[in-house]
Amino acid sequence: MRTVFWEDNRVKMIDQRLLPAEFVIAEFNSVDGVARSITEMYVRGAPAIGATGAYGMALAAQVSTASSRDDLLADLRAAKDVLDAARPTAVNLSWATRRLLEVAEQTVTDNVDDLRSALLAEAETLADEDVAINRRMGFNGAAVIPDGANLLHHCNTGALATVDFGTALGVVFACQEQGKSIHVWVDETRPRLQGARLTAWELMNAEIPMHLIADNAAGHLMRAGKVDVVIFGADRIAANGDVANKIGTYKLAVVARENGIPVYCVAPTSTVDLNLPDGDHIPIEERGDDEVIHLGDTLIAPAGVPVYNPAFDVTPHRYITGIVTEEGICYPPFTQSLKNAVNAAQEKIVENRLKRKK
Amino acid sequence: MRTVFWEDNRVKMIDQRLLPAEFVIAEFNSVDGVARSITEMYVRGAPAIGATGAYGMALAAQVSTASSRDDLLADLRAAKDVLDAARPTAVNLSWATRRLLEVAEQTVTDNVDDLRSALLAEAETLADEDVAINRRMGFNGAAVIPDGANLLHHCNTGALATVDFGTALGVVFACQEQGKSIHVWVDETRPRLQGARLTAWELMNAEIPMHLIADNAAGHLMRAGKVDVVIFGADRIAANGDVANKIGTYKLAVVARENGIPVYCVAPTSTVDLNLPDGDHIPIEERGDDEVIHLGDTLIAPAGVPVYNPAFDVTPHRYITGIVTEEGICYPPFTQSLKNAVNAAQEKIVENRLKRKK
Repeated sequence: MRTVFWEDNRVKMIDQRLLPAEFVIAEFNSVDGVARSITEMYVRGAPAIGATGAYGMALAAQVSTASSRDDLLADLRAAKDVLDAARPTAVNLSWATRRLLEVAEQTVTDNVDDLRSALLAEAETLADEDVAINRRMGFNGAAVIPDGANLLHHCNTGALATVDFGTALGVVFACQEQGKSIHVWVDETRPRLQGARLTAWELMNAEIPMHLIADNAAGHLMRAGKVDVVIFGADRIAANGDVANKIGTYKLAVVARENGIPVYCVAPTSTVDLNLPDGDHIPIEERGDDEVIHLGDTLIAPAGVPVYNPAFDVTPHRYITGIVTEEGICYPPFTQSLKNAVNAAQEKIVENRLKRKK
Repeated sequence: MRTVFWEDNRVKMIDQRLLPAEFVIAEFNSVDGVARSITEMYVRGAPAIGATGAYGMALAAQVSTASSRDDLLADLRAAKDVLDAARPTAVNLSWATRRLLEVAEQTVTDNVDDLRSALLAEAETLADEDVAINRRMGFNGAAVIPDGANLLHHCNTGALATVDFGTALGVVFACQEQGKSIHVWVDETRPRLQGARLTAWELMNAEIPMHLIADNAAGHLMRAGKVDVVIFGADRIAANGDVANKIGTYKLAVVARENGIPVYCVAPTSTVDLNLPDGDHIPIEERGDDEVIHLGDTLIAPAGVPVYNPAFDVTPHRYITGIVTEEGICYPPFTQSLKNAVNAAQEKIVENRLKRKK
């Protein structure tokens, strides 16, 4: 099943906050609700957030009471602002909402119901494309994973982080499909434990050999020669190849380079933000104290302790061996290779849109 | 109050497993019990484990039914084996038990009660020395901490990790006594959260400015220029200056060097193992899955997930700026500076023992 989908005029999604203990489908019938599902992390992972934003725009059109094209466009622009503000770091969100808004702006009709249909169709297309893109990306990445490799993986980048299949974990699934024997060291990924809760769950379900580790153990494994490739996703990639990803990625990448271990970032071109020259321009979300000091109902630090909790960090491009996209693997100099990949992907979107119109 | 102490013919200690939620004094009246208090981490921290081992030897003498010197020595040797096996990495444990056994071997008397008294006196001396050593070490280290510094600290190295005052946190306490304005970033230190549970508690009690962070956030802070010094303790230091310390120390040290941030290890000379040429010879304890997958009663990963849980890692000496001991700060080449410090400390122990005999 998909992580996020449209059904009965609602946006539905797996409530990832409850996994692996409970499997619950949450549903939202308002733009505010969809924004909250992103902020409160019912859904997370840059591509999944993008698809959720697209469905949120489709929902905005459905629930809008506008009877004119101009009024509907105004409602859509307002909805885009609400959705884009849900989380600041992943660029896929504004990439998707902009794409939906452009469809509305470019669809020349005064029939608002036709506009509503066009938006829902575009959201479904974007979700379908996400799955197709992830499969291409997975097999592109699998080409650089040797048979028998030990991978070290951070956060969750699987089916749950996307509409389906995943980004960095998509590479792992592609290796499995190719019959490669691989083993994954799974960083638990404090503070929200996406590795322990989600990646471990996905890999166990897929029967892929793995061990869960505290994030602190990753360096020890690398120094001991027990890691062949470090692999992770991205929430935003600047034009020069600097990568914003889940907090802790930077430490991993530095220690990997120190030990001569290749580092691959796996992300669709929708994660690339060519408007930002480098990673220092990427906004880094700071989240609440609660994520660090509570675990379920258990208080794991003294009450009232001051906390600093950035959700992401930036890994400068010099620590990254390659960025795996649906258009192939980008290598340094990233400024050129990323631009080529983004352009190729954008051409495909336009081409497909024209094909569907015919 | 002290972390571990002798009272009513028992070894008593703060049960650190329960902090900060509960403050409980545990007590043990058998050698097996004392060994269990170390294995199960009622008490932890290399110097505190050393003092516990010393008291364990004193207890072994008290509870022994031996009526001859030879029988008592046999019981002590057996007790040393039991205690030394409690945890493998920290060398302070076998250093302390050996010191106690040597006192028994060198005390020329056939009166077993005199031997019992000599052992208890030596354990008390070792505990007193630990506090005095930590204060000296703290002020030695404070000399390299600038006023206004932001320190990044891993695990717990405070009063709780020693008999009192601490090693790396002793440096922090010394800075406070000197009126320096400092701020500490506290690594929560997964999996056992000694930073969140113990270091945060000690610093809040001492009213030292601090923020708790997920271990993953440390790199982000270093790259942002918000860390002036990285500071931690040690469980064993090889002759060449390679340091075994709490898992995650290696990653921290590598990222610190990458960012030009000085890295100080703070440990008494009893942590130095001149018999080991380098860190690759230090045994690394692997602990149970439970530490990674449970938090209190909460299961934080899928049931049955395979786990790898090393408790320590080794930081090669090239990442370490200086090793702060009670005999001053050792700088590279560590092979020479550490040997000098150990010899100076050893001479003081012998000198003090002769003084007390007079």
